[in-house]
Amino acid sequence: MNIAIITSGGDAPGMNAAIRAVVRSASGQGFKTLGVEKGFLGLIENLFKLLTPRDVSGIINTGGSILKSSRCDLFKTPEGLEKASENLKSRRVDWVITMGGDGSMRGALSLSEVSGIPVTVIASSIDNDIAGIDETIGFDSAVNTAVQAIDKIRDTAVTYDRVFIVEVMGRNRGFLALEVALASGAEFAVIPEHPITVEEIAKRIKQMGEIGKRSSIIVKAEGAIGDPFQMASKLRELTGYDLRVTVLGYIQRGGVPTARSRNLACLFGKRAVELAAERKKNRIVGLKDGQVVDLNIREVCESIKKIDDEKYELVSILAI
Amino acid sequence: MNIAIITSGGDAPGMNAAIRAVVRSASGQGFKTLGVEKGFLGLIENLFKLLTPRDVSGIINTGGSILKSSRCDLFKTPEGLEKASENLKSRRVDWVITMGGDGSMRGALSLSEVSGIPVTVIASSIDNDIAGIDETIGFDSAVNTAVQAIDKIRDTAVTYDRVFIVEVMGRNRGFLALEVALASGAEFAVIPEHPITVEEIAKRIKQMGEIGKRSSIIVKAEGAIGDPFQMASKLRELTGYDLRVTVLGYIQRGGVPTARSRNLACLFGKRAVELAAERKKNRIVGLKDGQVVDLNIREVCESIKKIDDEKYELVSILAI
Amino acid sequence: MNIAIITSGGDAPGMNAAIRAVVRSASGQGFKTLGVEKGFLGLIENLFKLLTPRDVSGIINTGGSILKSSRCDLFKTPEGLEKASENLKSRRVDWVITMGGDGSMRGALSLSEVSGIPVTVIASSIDNDIAGIDETIGFDSAVNTAVQAIDKIRDTAVTYDRVFIVEVMGRNRGFLALEVALASGAEFAVIPEHPITVEEIAKRIKQMGEIGKRSSIIVKAEGAIGDPFQMASKLRELTGYDLRVTVLGYIQRGGVPTARSRNLACLFGKRAVELAAERKKNRIVGLKDGQVVDLNIREVCESIKKIDDEKYELVSILAI
Amino acid sequence: MNIAIITSGGDAPGMNAAIRAVVRSASGQGFKTLGVEKGFLGLIENLFKLLTPRDVSGIINTGGSILKSSRCDLFKTPEGLEKASENLKSRRVDWVITMGGDGSMRGALSLSEVSGIPVTVIASSIDNDIAGIDETIGFDSAVNTAVQAIDKIRDTAVTYDRVFIVEVMGRNRGFLALEVALASGAEFAVIPEHPITVEEIAKRIKQMGEIGKRSSIIVKAEGAIGDPFQMASKLRELTGYDLRVTVLGYIQRGGVPTARSRNLACLFGKRAVELAAERKKNRIVGLKDGQVVDLNIREVCESIKKIDDEKYELVSILAI
Repeated sequence: MNIAIITSGGDAPGMNAAIRAVVRSASGQGFKTLGVEKGFLGLIENLFKLLTPRDVSGIINTGGSILKSSRCDLFKTPEGLEKASENLKSRRVDWVITMGGDGSMRGALSLSEVSGIPVTVIASSIDNDIAGIDETIGFDSAVNTAVQAIDKIRDTAVTYDRVFIVEVMGRNRGFLALEVALASGAEFAVIPEHPITVEEIAKRIKQMGEIGKRSSIIVKAEGAIGDPFQMASKLRELTGYDLRVTVLGYIQRGGVPTARSRNLACLFGKRAVELAAERKKNRIVGLKDGQVVDLNIREVCESIKKIDDEKYELVSILAI
Repeated sequence: MNIAIITSGGDAPGMNAAIRAVVRSASGQGFKTLGVEKGFLGLIENLFKLLTPRDVSGIINTGGSILKSSRCDLFKTPEGLEKASENLKSRRVDWVITMGGDGSMRGALSLSEVSGIPVTVIASSIDNDIAGIDETIGFDSAVNTAVQAIDKIRDTAVTYDRVFIVEVMGRNRGFLALEVALASGAEFAVIPEHPITVEEIAKRIKQMGEIGKRSSIIVKAEGAIGDPFQMASKLRELTGYDLRVTVLGYIQRGGVPTARSRNLACLFGKRAVELAAERKKNRIVGLKDGQVVDLNIREVCESIKKIDDEKYELVSILAI
Repeated sequence: MNIAIITSGGDAPGMNAAIRAVVRSASGQGFKTLGVEKGFLGLIENLFKLLTPRDVSGIINTGGSILKSSRCDLFKTPEGLEKASENLKSRRVDWVITMGGDGSMRGALSLSEVSGIPVTVIASSIDNDIAGIDETIGFDSAVNTAVQAIDKIRDTAVTYDRVFIVEVMGRNRGFLALEVALASGAEFAVIPEHPITVEEIAKRIKQMGEIGKRSSIIVKAEGAIGDPFQMASKLRELTGYDLRVTVLGYIQRGGVPTARSRNLACLFGKRAVELAAERKKNRIVGLKDGQVVDLNIREVCESIKKIDDEKYELVSILAI
Repeated sequence: MNIAIITSGGDAPGMNAAIRAVVRSASGQGFKTLGVEKGFLGLIENLFKLLTPRDVSGIINTGGSILKSSRCDLFKTPEGLEKASENLKSRRVDWVITMGGDGSMRGALSLSEVSGIPVTVIASSIDNDIAGIDETIGFDSAVNTAVQAIDKIRDTAVTYDRVFIVEVMGRNRGFLALEVALASGAEFAVIPEHPITVEEIAKRIKQMGEIGKRSSIIVKAEGAIGDPFQMASKLRELTGYDLRVTVLGYIQRGGVPTARSRNLACLFGKRAVELAAERKKNRIVGLKDGQVVDLNIREVCESIKKIDDEKYELVSILAI
């Protein structure tokens, strides 16, 4: 069996650990793995290379993807998919394993339809917003990176009695922000799923000031409220406090993966190869209720993941 | 309601985050929290102090326990338990929350029997060996500390073509070692649950050498095989390789807790207070199947946790 | 002798280690140390508290300042200085030790003139822009924080063949940016001391692309060129590359100080107390040519520190 | 000009950054660089490979040596040196740059004598024990690794009122231990240069206990006193305290180099190539009084580096 492996989505720490797991699990089963470079673009541009167990040595603890990735609009066109399909067939690829989140699932599904070659998606995303899946590869790493940054920022917040708005990633969802807010002991988690006005935040900042708490951290999801600098201006006006903004940005996507991100990558990679061996097609692999599961990609694409409301409330309960 | 909180077991990163969660959740419910210093010893020596939400400020990201801890043999005697019981009653304590692993559970149960005061245990342990519970506070932190250390050691292993034995903690179980071995890409996980002889290890080291892999990492649980230095001598003799040993030791117990350890601490602490509010007595709080659960302490004490055999095998599959 | 200690400038990791060093060195000489809270503002508002060797326990590895700090415009007025002077005298303060950079030096000098009380400044600043001084407390920590962030960003840059502009602090100087650029292996150090146009940068990016180097990191000092997002737009236009921006911001000011920042803090703190003991007044303590030195504050205020041109060129030499 | 580059000594974080600096600086001068694998052994076994600027891409932040290293007794024999000399000549090598400490200097000198090919040594060593040189590549990284480990250990020490002996590397000298002790706020630096008996340590531990300080950290150089476990037994006996031991071991040799180790590597690497260009032979490059200097290797070999006694005393002054 020939497996093609692609890292197609936004990068997430642990992708390389998953590539290693796929290549070595496949080798253990007697399968051959072809790495596709530059994501879906590489399918179109015919960028394949054989990956042996030795080729994935020393990458378990590295960020980024050794296969590189790219945004590829061409892949959304019938011509792009047709070309990708041709290339896969000329390489005699029997199965495609791709890593990513939402966009990767949809791309993989289209590819499978056009080419007839089954796909498996390994859930990898720092946004952790895939329905039916509790945790994706890279999420734990991004949470820790953001939390470590906020630990530093809090030193300044406390020293100067300042309020900081820290914007974290997460696309249009608040999973990353919520997890970061709880772990950093933030006073506010501002996320799209729980709309709050700047006025309400201002009110609570002033209340906290009255009981002697003069510094605070607002963890804001990039998808919530809008521009953090405008939000800061308004809060400054409403509260009279010294407001500062830090947009964490791309540091959340890279870096040495945490142990947990690596271990999920090992487990997911192994399962993805098992699905190929079992000819169980068009599944996405992720963690659910503490177990590695595989779900029907189409169903996952059509569902929306719910935020944990109790966890959201816990941020406020613990920020007194 | 008056809640006494105790950190009684071996220390684990995230204990302070749990203290914060208990104190603030309790305050939110209108309960008062008394911190007991020095673990069970403080119960006997009457070392109580009121903890307000402000007292637990700035501790979410610190290692150790602000309440301190100690080994206390006296607590295992009827006199010790009687004295502890008296002190709790004289302080009008209605509920005891204690943090720890195996020993803490047993101690808490005895205390409840003697005093009639209900207890809740918050599962905290870097060993992660509590039956029925998938994850305790501190485990993720200890795993990451060990993995980061091994990342460093591997630099030397690869540079000099050496084999390293790295001994990690875990008492008489292999949960910590197994998780660390997988995440660090170790070639061997030597754990009590899967006995292996030094001869077998030597054989595989030589086989790997023949396919060009001349450095490797053996992650050894402290409870497996015996003295790592003797093991190294024997392996050196059997293989002719350059063998080195590092015993990671106490660095695994301390340090800034990971985001995950902090968040489990927040969730467990909140649940422990809820159990007190609901008068649901003598339960241990932990993570099971991705959910926060509470289990009957006695039943947990009488059961033995199983190791994940598939994960164990995965270490070998991925180490080719 | 009564020493007052103040953290007056922007915060820098290692300030707490320096407070510890001053208090304990002073105690060793039989001197008493009074901590002034909230920087120069605390002098005006009479916020003094006695600091004993036990009070500074456990702070050597913490960011921020246990004494807090603040911006204080009032301190620049004759009334403010007069009030501060009165308060110092009513507390029988014989010597003032303050920690900070440029602004702190000037403030300290004014205070000494008005009050007649001698001052010592401990050079603390992540900007490292004090004339005559090679290294201040906190600089090494800020450099490492920025470099670790860029290590993460580079993972994404390489994976996607992107160019990143990473803005670091440094006020109107480029010392921090230059050190960070060299250590992170950045392709460009854009600093105020070496003006470069966006066109020139674009030209070099394209040249590098021709020899196959398609990702790069531009470390930009906040004081150079102007808005990083406008710079990115222009570069995108000129090169056709995928350009991204990260402004590191306040994470550079906080966090656990590096060993070096702590050790400079120990050495500088001890020397500051020695200067008080020797009645050598109005000096600033810092590192020069690998040695702890003390310089005349006024002379330092009137000089301008030179950037290391060879180091600047080395960034380009090594970025091929 | 053809330059051969060798990593011959114990590994130190930053060696790869120095290889990168040499290769790219050499390329900038029009020189060719040949990497020699496995240290001096590779000279004998003829393991040369061309290194281009692209070959050293992405290594600035990695531990270990991409060229590998080894202990090589054969190199100390006339036959070994003769063979190495032959191989160098057959490759038309004009200059040898080697990285390491004491052993590397002596080896390089012998090689130069036998072969007539000039050498440059880049001072790289976590021991930092080279006479005339204040700082070597890797020292700052090893110090930080050890200090971060002790930060974790102190959490346990404080929580349980324990005394920890932490053994750090440094061969027969105390430079690493002293720097680590100061930065970690240790109560004791036990180093070969300042002999102290276990009885004296016990006495001071008891004195500290009387003023309420019941936990402490003893940083012990591997070259001082002897076996740390025996030392612990004796201290336990003499003080009645709970004593524990951690031997940090090989984690000190690897890992991501600090910004400072990387920047010294950049500067030293560049200077080494300049010395080749200038035909200034048999020099060792290091940091002295804050400047990059080059010294006569033979003179350095014959001298002994002094420990900083003031720094040693400062540990005690600040540990009150």
